[in-house]
Amino acid sequence: MKVGFRRGIFGPMKIDILTIGDEILLGQTIDTNSAWMAQTLQPHGIAVRQITSIEDTPAAIRTSVEAALDASPVVLVTGGLGPTRDDVTKETLAEMFGMPLVEHTPTLEAIEAFFARRNRPMLEVNRRQAWLPDGCTILPNPIGTAAGMWFERPSDGHIVVSMPGVPYEMKGLMTNEVIPRLTERFELPARVYTTLLTAGIGESFLAEHVKEWEDSLDARGVSIAYLPSPGQVRVRLGAVDADRDAAEARVASAVADFKALAGEWIASDSDEGLAAAVGRRLAAAGQTLSTAESCTGGSIGAEITAIAGSSAYFQGSVIAYANEVKMAMLDVSPSDLEAHGAVSEPVARAMAEGVLQKMGTDWSLATTGIAGPSGGSGEKPVGTVWIACAGKQGTGTGTGTGTGTGTGTGTVRRFQFAGNRERIIQQSVRAALDMLRRELDLVEGKKSSTGVGGE
Amino acid sequence: MKVGFRRGIFGPMKIDILTIGDEILLGQTIDTNSAWMAQTLQPHGIAVRQITSIEDTPAAIRTSVEAALDASPVVLVTGGLGPTRDDVTKETLAEMFGMPLVEHTPTLEAIEAFFARRNRPMLEVNRRQAWLPDGCTILPNPIGTAAGMWFERPSDGHIVVSMPGVPYEMKGLMTNEVIPRLTERFELPARVYTTLLTAGIGESFLAEHVKEWEDSLDARGVSIAYLPSPGQVRVRLGAVDADRDAAEARVASAVADFKALAGEWIASDSDEGLAAAVGRRLAAAGQTLSTAESCTGGSIGAEITAIAGSSAYFQGSVIAYANEVKMAMLDVSPSDLEAHGAVSEPVARAMAEGVLQKMGTDWSLATTGIAGPSGGSGEKPVGTVWIACAGKQGTGTGTGTGTGTGTGTGTVRRFQFAGNRERIIQQSVRAALDMLRRELDLVEGKKSSTGVGGE
Repeated sequence: MKVGFRRGIFGPMKIDILTIGDEILLGQTIDTNSAWMAQTLQPHGIAVRQITSIEDTPAAIRTSVEAALDASPVVLVTGGLGPTRDDVTKETLAEMFGMPLVEHTPTLEAIEAFFARRNRPMLEVNRRQAWLPDGCTILPNPIGTAAGMWFERPSDGHIVVSMPGVPYEMKGLMTNEVIPRLTERFELPARVYTTLLTAGIGESFLAEHVKEWEDSLDARGVSIAYLPSPGQVRVRLGAVDADRDAAEARVASAVADFKALAGEWIASDSDEGLAAAVGRRLAAAGQTLSTAESCTGGSIGAEITAIAGSSAYFQGSVIAYANEVKMAMLDVSPSDLEAHGAVSEPVARAMAEGVLQKMGTDWSLATTGIAGPSGGSGEKPVGTVWIACAGKQGTGTGTGTGTGTGTGTGTVRRFQFAGNRERIIQQSVRAALDMLRRELDLVEGKKSSTGVGGE
Repeated sequence: MKVGFRRGIFGPMKIDILTIGDEILLGQTIDTNSAWMAQTLQPHGIAVRQITSIEDTPAAIRTSVEAALDASPVVLVTGGLGPTRDDVTKETLAEMFGMPLVEHTPTLEAIEAFFARRNRPMLEVNRRQAWLPDGCTILPNPIGTAAGMWFERPSDGHIVVSMPGVPYEMKGLMTNEVIPRLTERFELPARVYTTLLTAGIGESFLAEHVKEWEDSLDARGVSIAYLPSPGQVRVRLGAVDADRDAAEARVASAVADFKALAGEWIASDSDEGLAAAVGRRLAAAGQTLSTAESCTGGSIGAEITAIAGSSAYFQGSVIAYANEVKMAMLDVSPSDLEAHGAVSEPVARAMAEGVLQKMGTDWSLATTGIAGPSGGSGEKPVGTVWIACAGKQGTGTGTGTGTGTGTGTGTVRRFQFAGNRERIIQQSVRAALDMLRRELDLVEGKKSSTGVGGE
């Protein structure tokens, strides 16, 4: 029998996540598992009430599992099942549910096969992994040696699922075993989300800009979330409804409003980053890109080439950290360097035009700035970054805060970023990619602008 | 009055961390704050009992703060204090402690100054951030607009500290305000740690290699933690003792043992990454470095230039993603590309030698490989990466698994990395930096080797 969690009946279903083990409490491991689980469960109409990271002791496990089971119908437990650790998760759960550990033949055979495939000897600790609580549902884990375990509390049918903490093993178990069983068991509402990417405007300014509209969303049954990272803000609009069509219609209507309101800052209407958005458009247009990086030191190239398939449009880059490299490899003139310094409009412009010519690309981006912590001056404080975007007709005539003056002519702009070295570099990367995005908008006839400040 | 948490009296002090906000529960944000806090607190003799991520509702905040305060003497709360979000953390804490919100003039002035420095208008939402609970200790946050708040529960003196969730603001508050106050308040045992950096050997292989020694550590009162990341493993040795000298002596003795055991894999005997370790040595030797990157796409440059002061030794790089760029800018011969393909020993060698000559550096690193997910073949599967390190005398005569054949002659090596695109790139970056590290060891007369496999 399905258990109903429709909106308006019980509200959306919420579960608990428990992670067991000292690595997270010691800060040695960042808990990426819980975020993955939350993101993966969400489209199935399952939200997370609480994530708790606890010590690997019987007392902590028992107390936390019981508290979570009292609060949520489902508790997903990760960690504490590895072969080498002195863990107690399995024993504690077996005891809580009154199930003795017995050797589980299919699991033993799977573990033996696992080692045979790898031509590795099976150790005694691995054999012990086939001893499992008698009475729980065993969830096979063909890519690891620790099986998943599914327990149900007799008093209320609440469920505890225990999985290993190794990310890819947990993901396999979630995808192949846990989610199918949860969607089978519970009648879940539809959750519909659309994520848009904005760039060139900070979270506070964006929120201020759309405030009136945002205030109306609650009454329309639409949720909004701002997901900021340096130089870009993702905006996620969502709705939950027993009727999927109704949820979709509500989200679509809100998305249309938002795109009209935030027009010039919309860098993508899907859930992707700036590098992916720009790359997709270059690939579609059959155009190519090169970069000339000083203060970003390769980070623009790294962000572009992190995208699979970027070789279709990205030709390469000259990282010109030293002035000699700017001159020798990008034809930046010694007199410009002398007269204006490396962090200047003429140098940014010359770098962009130099790499565009050398690499024969349709577009180029160049950065030169002061990432700090030292190297700043009164006139050019730390965080001063000149960024140039060149198209086939050069870098345009705009200077300072100007935009490009026509189609494909590019732009040169001075930015003043705040924060530490890492943040200044990240913001420079995103600002450069967003300058190219705006040039592509111009070419395609969309409105563009230099945006407002704020990060 | 100091409160004692000496070893053997109350055991090491344990605190709770609470993170508030839907971003983590929705999986939109990975909780890196808690790991940073745990790692940062540990040297001060403070461990973490539990990390809990909760919803941004008064009920959840109240319940969880009270439960954490009952379990731990200190509860550190992050999140839920931003200007735009509809958060309730501040109001809930104010109510729990019976403190009305009043405008706090120094905070208002600090917020005004914050916006003035940035030449940005101050919004009404930011002004509201100066309304703070009357009676808590305000912790100034000069790099943000949300102040920290320190509350003490009258019944038992247990402490709640609320901080914004923005990582660099939280880090500033922890470093400048929270940790000094905690170490002042509590009498904590000395915790002594030394972290060493190993490279070229995977965690399991390293652990196997030092197993016997590791098994003896417990009896010596020394803890060991492996902190792996792609291509490098940090090893942290620590001791806790009321007597700092005793703890230091125990750690020093274990460090000496470990350095002898893991000699060739020791990339640094302090807590720094490979790029910092290599950069420090180049700077000391007055030598320079350039890179030629294909499959890593700028990530080596990005990792090197993430280090402040890298302009002292890093000249620049050619990111030669396209073959035309390899030929035009690095003088890779068309016949080598034709005969061996871009992912080959001759091309890696030519790239390293080309960039070394073009940029006139003492050393260079080059990468060419298949990061995937597509582009692999039977002969060169995804993860195949050739890496070359050139010194003043070229790239040496070693091929395949060979080491350099003399001082400063460099090396060319083929690697086969596993994992997804991101992981292959990261491992390539670290392997390249470690090849240079080993060359520097050779120059300085230390023993070196190509290392064993494993990752």
